[in-house]
Amino acid sequence: MEALFRYNWMVRKEWYEWCEDIPEEELLAERTGGVGGILHTLFHIIDVEWSWIRLLQGLPDFQEKFEEYNSLAKVKELDAKFHLEVSAFVGNWNDSLEQNLLYDTTPDGREVIDTWGEIMRHAIVHEVHHIGQLSVWARELNKKPISANFIGRGLIPSEQVLTNE
Amino acid sequence: MEALFRYNWMVRKEWYEWCEDIPEEELLAERTGGVGGILHTLFHIIDVEWSWIRLLQGLPDFQEKFEEYNSLAKVKELDAKFHLEVSAFVGNWNDSLEQNLLYDTTPDGREVIDTWGEIMRHAIVHEVHHIGQLSVWARELNKKPISANFIGRGLIPSEQVLTNE
Repeated sequence: MEALFRYNWMVRKEWYEWCEDIPEEELLAERTGGVGGILHTLFHIIDVEWSWIRLLQGLPDFQEKFEEYNSLAKVKELDAKFHLEVSAFVGNWNDSLEQNLLYDTTPDGREVIDTWGEIMRHAIVHEVHHIGQLSVWARELNKKPISANFIGRGLIPSEQVLTNE
Repeated sequence: MEALFRYNWMVRKEWYEWCEDIPEEELLAERTGGVGGILHTLFHIIDVEWSWIRLLQGLPDFQEKFEEYNSLAKVKELDAKFHLEVSAFVGNWNDSLEQNLLYDTTPDGREVIDTWGEIMRHAIVHEVHHIGQLSVWARELNKKPISANFIGRGLIPSEQVLTNE
C-alpha cells in the first residue's frame, strides 16, 4: 500500500518539475476532461489525498478553492504542507487498519460505510487516473509526459540485492 | 494487491460496455496521447497485464499486433482468454512472493532486476494510468467517462457489516 503512495509522490514531484518548463497560461488553460486543467488537476490530487487522510483521522476536511492556489508555487507550497500529515499517516499504515470503518455521506446524500482499506486504495487510484489525463494534455502541448512506470524507480528494492551490495 | 486488480477488471468491463454505444470508427480513430486510440488502449492494457503475468511465470510473452485485434469483439475475446490465467495468478498471490526476483532486459538493452511486488504494482498502475487517458478522450466525444472511483464498488466489504446482515 505504502509503496503505491510513494510512487504517486515521486511521479507528482516529476510533474512539478515538468511544469517549470511550461508557460503559466498553459498550466492554467481550460482543457477537456477531468477537472479541466493541468495545475487544477495537481491541486485536486493533493486536495483529495489530504481530505481522505483527514477523514480517516476524524479531522476537518479541506474546503478551499483552486482560485486561491492558481500558481505552481502555491500548489507546491500547499502540497508540502499537507504532505507532512499524509506521509505520517501512510507511514503508520498496517494491515490491522484495513477493516476499520468510515461512515460517510455521498455528494447525493446517501449514507455509506467504507472500509479504510477501500479509502486508501481509492486515494491511490484517484491520483494515477488524473495523472493519466495530464499525459494526454502534455502530448497536446507537444511535450513528453512523465513516465508512469512503477518499475525502475527503486520503490521496492530487492532485499537480496541490497544484502549482496 | 488483489483488490486493485479486481478494481481494474471491473472498470475495464464498464469501459467495454461504454464502447458498445460508440461508433467503431471513433473507437479506432487516432487520438493524441498514450497509444493513440480508445480500442488500442484497451488492447494495450490486456496485452501488458498478461505479458507481465507470463514473465513472472517464466512463460513466453504476447507479441501480437493491435491490427489483428481491431474490433471491440476481438479485444473482448482476447481479454476473456487471457483473464483465466491472469486471475488465477492474482488469486494465488500472497506476501511471500513480494521479494521474488525477475531478471529482465529493458527496451534499451539494460539488464535489470525487479521484485515481483514491483511488477504487480507496475501492472496495476499501468492500467489506471491508461484509463485516465480514455476519460479525456470520452469527454472529447461529449460522452461521460466510466467512474474511476474505487469506493462504492464493494471491492473490500466490511466484515462487520457482512456479519450483521
